[in-house]
Amino acid sequence: MSGGEFDLIARLVERMPPPGPQMRVASGDDAAVTEPRGTAAATTIDTIVEGVHFRLPGFPLEAVGRKALAAALSDLAAMGADPGEAYVSLGAPESLGEDELLRVGDGMAEVAAREGVTVAGGDVTRAPALTLTVACVGYERRGTELVTRAGAEPGDVLAVTGELGGAAGGLLVLDGLDDEGALRDRQRAVLASRQLDPRPRFAAGRALADAGARAMIDISDGLGADAGHLARASAVRAEIDLGALPLGEGLVGLLGDERRARELAAGGGEDFELLAAIGHERLEEAVTAVEGLGGRLTQVGRGVQGEGVSIRDADGGEVEPRGFDHRPGRPRPGPRGGAHQ
Amino acid sequence: MSGGEFDLIARLVERMPPPGPQMRVASGDDAAVTEPRGTAAATTIDTIVEGVHFRLPGFPLEAVGRKALAAALSDLAAMGADPGEAYVSLGAPESLGEDELLRVGDGMAEVAAREGVTVAGGDVTRAPALTLTVACVGYERRGTELVTRAGAEPGDVLAVTGELGGAAGGLLVLDGLDDEGALRDRQRAVLASRQLDPRPRFAAGRALADAGARAMIDISDGLGADAGHLARASAVRAEIDLGALPLGEGLVGLLGDERRARELAAGGGEDFELLAAIGHERLEEAVTAVEGLGGRLTQVGRGVQGEGVSIRDADGGEVEPRGFDHRPGRPRPGPRGGAHQ
Repeated sequence: MSGGEFDLIARLVERMPPPGPQMRVASGDDAAVTEPRGTAAATTIDTIVEGVHFRLPGFPLEAVGRKALAAALSDLAAMGADPGEAYVSLGAPESLGEDELLRVGDGMAEVAAREGVTVAGGDVTRAPALTLTVACVGYERRGTELVTRAGAEPGDVLAVTGELGGAAGGLLVLDGLDDEGALRDRQRAVLASRQLDPRPRFAAGRALADAGARAMIDISDGLGADAGHLARASAVRAEIDLGALPLGEGLVGLLGDERRARELAAGGGEDFELLAAIGHERLEEAVTAVEGLGGRLTQVGRGVQGEGVSIRDADGGEVEPRGFDHRPGRPRPGPRGGAHQ
Repeated sequence: MSGGEFDLIARLVERMPPPGPQMRVASGDDAAVTEPRGTAAATTIDTIVEGVHFRLPGFPLEAVGRKALAAALSDLAAMGADPGEAYVSLGAPESLGEDELLRVGDGMAEVAAREGVTVAGGDVTRAPALTLTVACVGYERRGTELVTRAGAEPGDVLAVTGELGGAAGGLLVLDGLDDEGALRDRQRAVLASRQLDPRPRFAAGRALADAGARAMIDISDGLGADAGHLARASAVRAEIDLGALPLGEGLVGLLGDERRARELAAGGGEDFELLAAIGHERLEEAVTAVEGLGGRLTQVGRGVQGEGVSIRDADGGEVEPRGFDHRPGRPRPGPRGGAHQ
């Protein structure tokens, strides 16, 4: 970074929404100081790196900022937490000028304002590739308990919010790998937005917690992998019905084949929807609560005694819960929040 | 990262000290969950990048882990906080194998154990250069207030803990730029350790807070720059006496010239000592308190009405508070904790 670094920092800070009431000391000191809020704090850290999680050019710079913050917040939504503060480290390559870095900041500010998050501190450094690390703090709501991955029981329903496969499909659209005639412009835009503007499901996470969800996880590694994380933490076996997965609109058209679309939904990752384990007797209440928010909750499987995860098609055949190789020659991104494993 | 990533994460986690009593959910879920501790939380984020903040080979991998955590913790020490949790993102180049990444983890675990910090979560991803981002949470002690940069008043004494210039001198030693004959091996080792094993000054920070320090900052950008940050936040002018600076042992021998040693102490950075503003009437109490910990507190200047910072030599000449160009051809590292500015 040049001597203009302090100017850059000041211009980034002024883009962010004003500090929330819980901040005693916001940006500008050795550390930010927060007053207690809620009864427990949930904290997570996530990094996205150019060339690994996104590619420049092609991925708009605002979308890099949006995605970095939204992906980190998604981990808090998956606990039924309220959002609190974000701390951001920006690694900037010399090839990007100040105006371009401010566009990254704009995208982050957009998500911070929409989700009610205070960007309370940060760091800026040179780096060989554009790198954003976001540490986020969320809070347990009074009268509720944060929902971990570890509470699912045999007999529980496994249900997902929203639709799956859209983020992986969006990457194909962004890479120009979709057949021009197969999709309407609107479908193409909706799929791309799953990559460029992912939404942490805070409202659904709270509603699911209130409806008695016993375990939750966000679908960042792909449903198969994340169901496996939940199953391991809960000491149950997760059985997923491939045919039950709610597919993003346009996904079948994009892949040209429903089976391939379903495999993408099972393995694609980065959907940032929630997977919850819910007692069978409370499923209807949970579905109604999520629909009341304008969302969707779909039963995709169940927890049974045992371990591991299986994904089965209508013929009873087992589907390998692998990621879709949506960027030929590109290694698969590592799982997010990895060290939480 | 390869398919061995989960193994790597598990092996990193098992190296860390066990979670402290404040952890309700440690590593292994979407987010780590902490129970309230103290009356306010101080949170900071810092990144170190290969090629910017350290160079491989030459900088031992354990030292990279130590330095990343110690530098982040230093920001909390500068508020008089107790250490709490750390969240770590490791960006790993493909050129480093698992055994080498574990050495980074070993260094971090060493500091976590020594300072009583819980490494409560993390992320591992591929990156073009070894990159460590550490977000740290510390806590206000009951009955005390966290000390910001903003409370210094005209008339206050400015005092520093420990010795200055050692970290910049250590870099010269590590780069082999010291004249073989000038230093004894022990001096060389002490200077190098200021780079390879910096110590956050928690005990001194607490003692200074208890002795009424009105403002504090850690010396990570160099005394001149950090006195400037404190002066701006406090709306005072900082006057520093070059001749009063406590020099690391061997620094004069290394530089071959006392004046150059003093300039390095004023501008070198990365010393991670504390600069405090203290009412004149409480200086003796503060000195005694820090000496009681086996440390040292030295008056180096004072706050006066006005703004900015001046560093003067015995003749009254003004010294430019610039960083020492200790790595020819290498851009100066950006200030740490920059976005806090």
